[in-house]
Amino acid sequence: MEKSLNELAKLVNGDVIGDGSVLIKGVAGIEDAVSGQITFISNPKYTRLIYKTEASAVIASPDILQSLKDRNILCAKNPYLAFAKILEYFTPKPTLYQGIHPKAEVHPNTVIDASVSIYSHVYIEEGARIGSGVVLYPGVYIGRDVFVGDDTVIYSNVSVRERCRIGSRVIIHCNSVIGSDGFGFAKEGVKLYKIPQTGVVRIENDVEIGACVTIDRATLGETVIKRGTKIDNLVQIAHNVVIGEDSVIVAQVGISGSTRIGDRVTLAGQVGVAGHIEIGNDITIGAKSGVTHDLPAKGIFSGMPAIPHREWLKAVNIFAKLPELRKKILELENKIKELEGKETREVL
Amino acid sequence: MEKSLNELAKLVNGDVIGDGSVLIKGVAGIEDAVSGQITFISNPKYTRLIYKTEASAVIASPDILQSLKDRNILCAKNPYLAFAKILEYFTPKPTLYQGIHPKAEVHPNTVIDASVSIYSHVYIEEGARIGSGVVLYPGVYIGRDVFVGDDTVIYSNVSVRERCRIGSRVIIHCNSVIGSDGFGFAKEGVKLYKIPQTGVVRIENDVEIGACVTIDRATLGETVIKRGTKIDNLVQIAHNVVIGEDSVIVAQVGISGSTRIGDRVTLAGQVGVAGHIEIGNDITIGAKSGVTHDLPAKGIFSGMPAIPHREWLKAVNIFAKLPELRKKILELENKIKELEGKETREVL
Amino acid sequence: MEKSLNELAKLVNGDVIGDGSVLIKGVAGIEDAVSGQITFISNPKYTRLIYKTEASAVIASPDILQSLKDRNILCAKNPYLAFAKILEYFTPKPTLYQGIHPKAEVHPNTVIDASVSIYSHVYIEEGARIGSGVVLYPGVYIGRDVFVGDDTVIYSNVSVRERCRIGSRVIIHCNSVIGSDGFGFAKEGVKLYKIPQTGVVRIENDVEIGACVTIDRATLGETVIKRGTKIDNLVQIAHNVVIGEDSVIVAQVGISGSTRIGDRVTLAGQVGVAGHIEIGNDITIGAKSGVTHDLPAKGIFSGMPAIPHREWLKAVNIFAKLPELRKKILELENKIKELEGKETREVL
Repeated sequence: MEKSLNELAKLVNGDVIGDGSVLIKGVAGIEDAVSGQITFISNPKYTRLIYKTEASAVIASPDILQSLKDRNILCAKNPYLAFAKILEYFTPKPTLYQGIHPKAEVHPNTVIDASVSIYSHVYIEEGARIGSGVVLYPGVYIGRDVFVGDDTVIYSNVSVRERCRIGSRVIIHCNSVIGSDGFGFAKEGVKLYKIPQTGVVRIENDVEIGACVTIDRATLGETVIKRGTKIDNLVQIAHNVVIGEDSVIVAQVGISGSTRIGDRVTLAGQVGVAGHIEIGNDITIGAKSGVTHDLPAKGIFSGMPAIPHREWLKAVNIFAKLPELRKKILELENKIKELEGKETREVL
Repeated sequence: MEKSLNELAKLVNGDVIGDGSVLIKGVAGIEDAVSGQITFISNPKYTRLIYKTEASAVIASPDILQSLKDRNILCAKNPYLAFAKILEYFTPKPTLYQGIHPKAEVHPNTVIDASVSIYSHVYIEEGARIGSGVVLYPGVYIGRDVFVGDDTVIYSNVSVRERCRIGSRVIIHCNSVIGSDGFGFAKEGVKLYKIPQTGVVRIENDVEIGACVTIDRATLGETVIKRGTKIDNLVQIAHNVVIGEDSVIVAQVGISGSTRIGDRVTLAGQVGVAGHIEIGNDITIGAKSGVTHDLPAKGIFSGMPAIPHREWLKAVNIFAKLPELRKKILELENKIKELEGKETREVL
Repeated sequence: MEKSLNELAKLVNGDVIGDGSVLIKGVAGIEDAVSGQITFISNPKYTRLIYKTEASAVIASPDILQSLKDRNILCAKNPYLAFAKILEYFTPKPTLYQGIHPKAEVHPNTVIDASVSIYSHVYIEEGARIGSGVVLYPGVYIGRDVFVGDDTVIYSNVSVRERCRIGSRVIIHCNSVIGSDGFGFAKEGVKLYKIPQTGVVRIENDVEIGACVTIDRATLGETVIKRGTKIDNLVQIAHNVVIGEDSVIVAQVGISGSTRIGDRVTLAGQVGVAGHIEIGNDITIGAKSGVTHDLPAKGIFSGMPAIPHREWLKAVNIFAKLPELRKKILELENKIKELEGKETREVL
């Protein structure tokens, strides 16, 4: 696979500055790239590296570009997107097993498209329906009546429990769990009585789910991950949660039961969200924050409990100086005592 | 399956207000329920929904009840528990594979009850004993000399390492790990020398363990989860930890080595507990808190490090106002300077 | 297996005080040990237990030793290390399956040493190379062109994706994931466009990785865990992270993309580290802390965001007293008003 810089520029609607006829065979990071490769810069912080790279061309945005000379540049408005598309172009498709491996165990009463790749040690229970082009890697468990849409890829050792519905072009990374029981108990005296978790998980099209993620089924009804949302590794999503479209849930986030998250929301790493609350559209929560109440309006929030990010930044800045602040208060106290003493002496 | 409201009321020791002869075929959430279904309300916040639901009956507590008219009510002192039992009644038992699937691999030198459901791709090592009615879903690994008590259900891709003991009626959700090595190393210069982890994990009866939970075996002796305790997803329990009875460990909690947790303790989501400490009975730790020292007495604690919850609430409230507070201090400082200035002028 | 105390002392370069001829058959914790066993004390806090233990000998450090009488002591400079080595001596090696189990699925185009233990339900893809003495427990998935070095042990249900390289004497505990896709997306309008993750994970020799750990492959290049580093359970390591040698990453830590961690670093439980930053050698981060910027110099840091540990301790101590502090400020304010009032009256 080899393409000229001009051809790559066409692929991503970009412009070439320099020699567009240079041939590109692959993509590499700016420090590792060699001749024949294209590399990428988006963060102006790393602009100086452009003069050190051995890459034959660099993807860059118009604003970075002005400082560049004597380089072959693929100039793109959204260089990160151009990079993604060019990298995709050069990434070979994996060679897949065709059909159902004899060491897989598939219930006869299932509907499985002929174009699937079902590896050894996969288990598919009665009533499951598996769409065209689906890849189920070794050790995947598909429970009763599960639906998996077209071109979805489920990596090794993922468990999908009964009746869950996975959309098309979904990616689920290794060892994740879809449809485990929600964590619900009623107190019977001091004992905890299990509330049956009879609902499902529904994952819409184009969702990506990381490794070792747990998404619990609803008690009644559905836990829902809407179209295009991306979930990182080790995330916990409790029963009856609904996450909107095109949201980004970073690693180790936990979302408690029945909470609703809007569209285009970003929850940064290790965020926790309380149960039965709502986070509106276009909200970003800073890393390690805890959201304890509804957040309806657009904005960035941080801290535990989460407050507007700018306020949190100011408060946290003073937090580190609390010892100084206390010292100052004690000084003021002493000065006031002194002033009061003088007054008393005056009165005397 | 169909039962009159009167019959359901008997099932849960509740009272009927309205038409007890109405036939109920299932359970649904208050917003989704249709005619022929029973629904449930416990949070007074949602009382208004009772007038919108199409459900044929509503489970409610006596105090909510007073505001209800023209509705068929199943009045229960503990409506959440009544809901759990009625939902259980209507939930069909799963149809299970009977016996040992030929694609499972079971060592001949094991003791396995005839009533088990052992699915394909299960592995059972020499010396294991599996009680009556046990269900091992696909991909479960049972190590050497493991004991699994009667009616325990272990979901797909769970790993149980050698010599661990699982009680009766235990539920372990998908992809969890019981008996991984404790995290123990001795320093040999700058290098870390592995301390063998030769103990086990013992899980008592009626414990429920979520998905992707890790419970490490003891270095020596046992890591113990006592009767009736419920553990949510992605929880980490280190070597030699002991958790008491009927405790609730919410998702993403981490408990460090050799720590002892009492009975009826609640650790809310993402809590961390230091090693070698004790948390007494009937203690609740607020979400995202860090417990760094012994907490012997009953109460609610929050923060990092955890302090009494009410104190934390007050402190955190002021934290958000630290910029104001600092401003006020600077103002006071200026006023004092002014007062001191006047005094100086007076002296002059 | 039985050895005299004298022989055990030789094994660990220790000295015997008391009867060196006493025979030792095993190791146990100080509260559980019986006659014929050796036990261990390192924490002076537990010294009193030495007089209660039934153990035939106790491993202790010279400083604890002074308070001991009438006991058989194995005196070692580093008693924890001596304990580790003696425990290792008494721990029987597991009996392993020899060869490749017929229910495993191994691609013919692989290079697999004859001395391996490959259990049932293991899957090995084309191009993989598996070194001598390697143990792959049931349900392990080894992707295309993966390399696994000599004497490495991979526990059940671990997934290792294509082209990752695992060194020698590495231990990977159950259900972990090596080489899942990094979490990288470019925005295309509001939609998230997947950036192919074409790099690998490289794990050097003598690394230990806990259960349910996720280590993402690099976007381009490598995610690297260097020699001797130990990683606890449920840790998230993002794409292109590099962790140095002999570092300790405690449970539930999350490290964001492209961050570099030095040698001999300790990240305590539930720490989060931002992306694209550097943590230098010999740094310790306190539990639950968040590192948001470069930390070049040796030291201990805590808090969110992390500051020097001593400063954090002081600040957090005042945090708990913020209500008092505010009260004091209000008092000062009132006193100043009073003083100002008097002045005003004097002027009048």
